[in-house]
Amino acid sequence: MERFLSCDWGTSRFRLRLIQATDLHVLASVTHDKGIAETFRLWKEQRGKSIRREEFYANALRDAVDELEQKSGALLNDVPIVISGMASSTIGLMELPYKTLPFQLDGSDLYAEALYTETLNNRLILVSGVRTDRDVMRGEETKVVGCAPLLEHTEKEQLLILPGTHPKHVWIKGNQATAFETYMTGEFFDLLSVQSMLSDSVEAGADFQDPANQACFCEGVDASQTSDLLHAAFMVRTNQLLKQIPKTRNFYYLSGVLIGAELRGICANTPVYLVGAPKHSHLYERALNELGVPIVKIIDADTALISGQRLIFSALRT
Amino acid sequence: MERFLSCDWGTSRFRLRLIQATDLHVLASVTHDKGIAETFRLWKEQRGKSIRREEFYANALRDAVDELEQKSGALLNDVPIVISGMASSTIGLMELPYKTLPFQLDGSDLYAEALYTETLNNRLILVSGVRTDRDVMRGEETKVVGCAPLLEHTEKEQLLILPGTHPKHVWIKGNQATAFETYMTGEFFDLLSVQSMLSDSVEAGADFQDPANQACFCEGVDASQTSDLLHAAFMVRTNQLLKQIPKTRNFYYLSGVLIGAELRGICANTPVYLVGAPKHSHLYERALNELGVPIVKIIDADTALISGQRLIFSALRT
Repeated sequence: MERFLSCDWGTSRFRLRLIQATDLHVLASVTHDKGIAETFRLWKEQRGKSIRREEFYANALRDAVDELEQKSGALLNDVPIVISGMASSTIGLMELPYKTLPFQLDGSDLYAEALYTETLNNRLILVSGVRTDRDVMRGEETKVVGCAPLLEHTEKEQLLILPGTHPKHVWIKGNQATAFETYMTGEFFDLLSVQSMLSDSVEAGADFQDPANQACFCEGVDASQTSDLLHAAFMVRTNQLLKQIPKTRNFYYLSGVLIGAELRGICANTPVYLVGAPKHSHLYERALNELGVPIVKIIDADTALISGQRLIFSALRT
Repeated sequence: MERFLSCDWGTSRFRLRLIQATDLHVLASVTHDKGIAETFRLWKEQRGKSIRREEFYANALRDAVDELEQKSGALLNDVPIVISGMASSTIGLMELPYKTLPFQLDGSDLYAEALYTETLNNRLILVSGVRTDRDVMRGEETKVVGCAPLLEHTEKEQLLILPGTHPKHVWIKGNQATAFETYMTGEFFDLLSVQSMLSDSVEAGADFQDPANQACFCEGVDASQTSDLLHAAFMVRTNQLLKQIPKTRNFYYLSGVLIGAELRGICANTPVYLVGAPKHSHLYERALNELGVPIVKIIDADTALISGQRLIFSALRT
């Protein structure tokens, strides 16, 4: 395999990238906001025309492949597409069952299904999610596989933190992912900063590199260690009302309160890996630092995803 | 004073009641949803006509007094109106400064201002809120004063819990309220059950008296004691996805998670008073029971408000 198409089809976002397999270089990419939820909605609207769900989703994929062909100038006929994320869910292209934890870090025992459609010449490799008795994820398992080659060789338990709308904490032991937990940090932040009574007290846009903003962020992190979130969040309001803290700075206080609450239980001598986009990693790095938790390594989440997709695809072929 | 008008003017709701002062009997009432936020918005729209804020709010009050006159058949000219809540805030009828804690439980050192307007013949008594270095409330201080005659005589610290959109925990020692904290429990519940990804997993309307719903509520309370709220809330999703828990029952799980998180820090040997409307008191009573915290007394929040207004009014006159 010289090249493959990496598809990240989440609830609200779609991304397709042409990858050079040898060095994982991104040759071209297409991004839009027709995520799985929107695609499912559009398919339900069309159902009167009795188009099969699989074909409807394949049409959406084909449009993106066409666009990528134009962008890259490459012929993408026959190039396999590896798909991670919500595409394997109940509202996705085809529902695949979750793999139950533990799973092997080399991706060899994850559920992945290879399929062909009438619409596309490309082979599709659909990667399913994983579950425990009480938790689920789809997409992050691929990133975990992509991180595996970068982890230290130790029999000690290691923790991968994957920030996002619904961050995951994934525990690794030996060659397996043994446990994970989902947090609603990013969604809470969006709800509170835009829809709640706190929205009058925060304003986006200020630079996190400004030391005053970082200090406010750290105050939020500290507050979350001693107060319950339901109380600590209200301080975002009183910061503005009683202390005249500017809204742009208070924005980072709220962020600190939420990220601090998420990270509260982490033991300082657990080896922690941060797997995120730079915008998240900066915040989480600062928060972990404030809490005295050393970070072994920061891994770019995009790189981890692409690397994981290649590894899962390789495991599938052998 | 034989009668007075009790006005509860909150952010999103208005209520005016004619009270028989001797026994606090409610003779008639008017309720609508022109809360302080809406009234402030309407006043800003009218500002071109340069009507003074005080008069604009007094007009709104006069309309309600007129309606109450018709309902009750009583002449309400000259009957004093005691107003608690957001009417004394920056967006209220007239901004009054917060009283800084501690405050006397008999209401004698709260800020209350008596005023007359051109629009109304009624004297207005506007009660201000209270603050600490880090927290504020407007309205609950009046309820606390109303509860005071019902508390046990003890030098031990006592805790009043006032559920609502933004519940308050108020600590009492001797004849003073010495500390309080605001929680965002009710607002979090509304945001999560209506606007978040959890909204697909919950449905309002089931009877809390159903033992299955109470059991689910208690599971939520228990989950909140060992898990962070950001994680425990996600179980509302997996309850439905992995355990097929009905949405109407899961609604109470979410409620249990949030109320449990609010009550987590309460020590079992602190004397606790619950000051709420029945719909809240039932839930909080069950949660405190699940946590092994005995309740000294349940006090109706409405009764406490009216009683507090009478006491503050009396203290003002002497």
